[in-house]
Amino acid sequence: MSIVAVGSVAFDTIATPSGRVENILGGAATYFSLAASYFTDVRVVAVVGEDFTAEHENVFHQHRIDTRGIEHAKGKTFRWGGQYLDNLNEAKTDFTELNVFERFQPRIPREYLDSKFLFLANIHPTLQAAVRLEIYGVRLTGGDTMNYWIQRTRTELGETLKLINVLLINDNEAKMLAAEKNLPRAAQKVLSMGPQALVIKHGEYGATIFFREGAFGIGSHPFRAPALPIEEVTDPTGAGDSFAGGFMGYLASQPQLNREVLKRALFYGGVMGSFAVERFGTERLQSLTREEIEARFQVFRELTHLE
Amino acid sequence: MSIVAVGSVAFDTIATPSGRVENILGGAATYFSLAASYFTDVRVVAVVGEDFTAEHENVFHQHRIDTRGIEHAKGKTFRWGGQYLDNLNEAKTDFTELNVFERFQPRIPREYLDSKFLFLANIHPTLQAAVRLEIYGVRLTGGDTMNYWIQRTRTELGETLKLINVLLINDNEAKMLAAEKNLPRAAQKVLSMGPQALVIKHGEYGATIFFREGAFGIGSHPFRAPALPIEEVTDPTGAGDSFAGGFMGYLASQPQLNREVLKRALFYGGVMGSFAVERFGTERLQSLTREEIEARFQVFRELTHLE
Repeated sequence: MSIVAVGSVAFDTIATPSGRVENILGGAATYFSLAASYFTDVRVVAVVGEDFTAEHENVFHQHRIDTRGIEHAKGKTFRWGGQYLDNLNEAKTDFTELNVFERFQPRIPREYLDSKFLFLANIHPTLQAAVRLEIYGVRLTGGDTMNYWIQRTRTELGETLKLINVLLINDNEAKMLAAEKNLPRAAQKVLSMGPQALVIKHGEYGATIFFREGAFGIGSHPFRAPALPIEEVTDPTGAGDSFAGGFMGYLASQPQLNREVLKRALFYGGVMGSFAVERFGTERLQSLTREEIEARFQVFRELTHLE
Repeated sequence: MSIVAVGSVAFDTIATPSGRVENILGGAATYFSLAASYFTDVRVVAVVGEDFTAEHENVFHQHRIDTRGIEHAKGKTFRWGGQYLDNLNEAKTDFTELNVFERFQPRIPREYLDSKFLFLANIHPTLQAAVRLEIYGVRLTGGDTMNYWIQRTRTELGETLKLINVLLINDNEAKMLAAEKNLPRAAQKVLSMGPQALVIKHGEYGATIFFREGAFGIGSHPFRAPALPIEEVTDPTGAGDSFAGGFMGYLASQPQLNREVLKRALFYGGVMGSFAVERFGTERLQSLTREEIEARFQVFRELTHLE
């Protein structure tokens, strides 16, 4: 079934030990959409400036991503510059130019309103909530957030969390959101704020999904998917959004949503994140095949599988 | 088959958010021996002072651990004080009194010389090598080390690594030893120094085992075991040594050593580490049953198992 992705489209300037690239296509909605497009139909909602060309839009179209929700505004597209020269696990931001993204008001095309899956990338929680309420028939909503919103808009974020079924954040965000350093206890606190499931991304160590008691099945046991130890990390940018794209895209492709499906989705999230970091920007995500994805899924599975 | 454990016996003073304990029985050899004792016969080599009483020795005897290799020297036993008040993942050392441990010269009782498994806990690499050469008929040697030896005795450690079959260290130690920040590349470098297999412990994220090409089976794919998300971490002291005890103890109990056995051993390592942290010191390791261990092994297995 179709999934709507709402978030940023950006031009990134990135330096890593492998090299440097300037103004390449990026942004959470871009990584998410490309990763999810291998599993299901994707509809994107974003805003771009006059520097966003037909060639850029074609990257989406080549993956059958519906771009009617990309608003073309006057001015420049969101630009971000960062480096991972000392630490591949954490970006050091060089500059952030919000440009047209500063006044982003997601406009949902009428044709998107029958969508059953929704992913709210990292934007102001009030905008996230408004989109969720507008696409009223949605079956499952995934969402992201970040330290910035947790610190500055805690009340608004609290309201949005009641509308999100699966929240996908990293360790530090979970601990900050819960004001609790112990991860499983932090997870329980976050689940009590609204989501039925919480995916905590551990970077190179994989991800854990925590379920609210009774949600998507019986019990409250967490489940953990590993990350592949990768020798050649070229560019970590977008790994988390690609993870979310694999996770949500797989869910949207399934007739049923139960714990086994969510567990498999967690593995597919790891698979798409592991591909994303192999090349700069979205390069690797643009050229995958479903066969390559399935082959890596098997590698991930064998990575922790006892006979 | 019997396993010999060589390392420290200590009295620890520990403060964690759960409370504070003074001069409780600890030390790498103690945690290792207790954890391994649930799988096989253990023989310990260590040095203690006059403050080490029959009551302390009885903790070992209750687990049928052979203590003929514990030397009783004049003076006080090794004492360590540390706290985990801000961060349960890393101890802040308050004091270290080496006492009799400063002049530790492992003396291997004649009765231990037929042992087929050996674990060299974190001591001077030259002492590790001497023990390994003395117990000449050993089938598999596991070893630990730490930043202190990597920085100060790199040459000696290099010689010792040629005698160790499975090295068990944490992420930072592996990166420092290899002078390489990328973990899989660091692992390959460490394997080129001697060990057939390298276990890298990731703390709350589990552990990964890397194999030298062709060692213990075909191929060079790594394998990853998760750690259980634990809500109540009372005291992290000894988690790594308990992991090693579960890992090596399980290996010593098996008729064959192949990759599947080493993978299962990695899970048993995680199981024993997860028990260790539930209570202060060795309390939880003293009171386990094999049934509890098997039940948690199943929980670990299900934690990453896709149907």
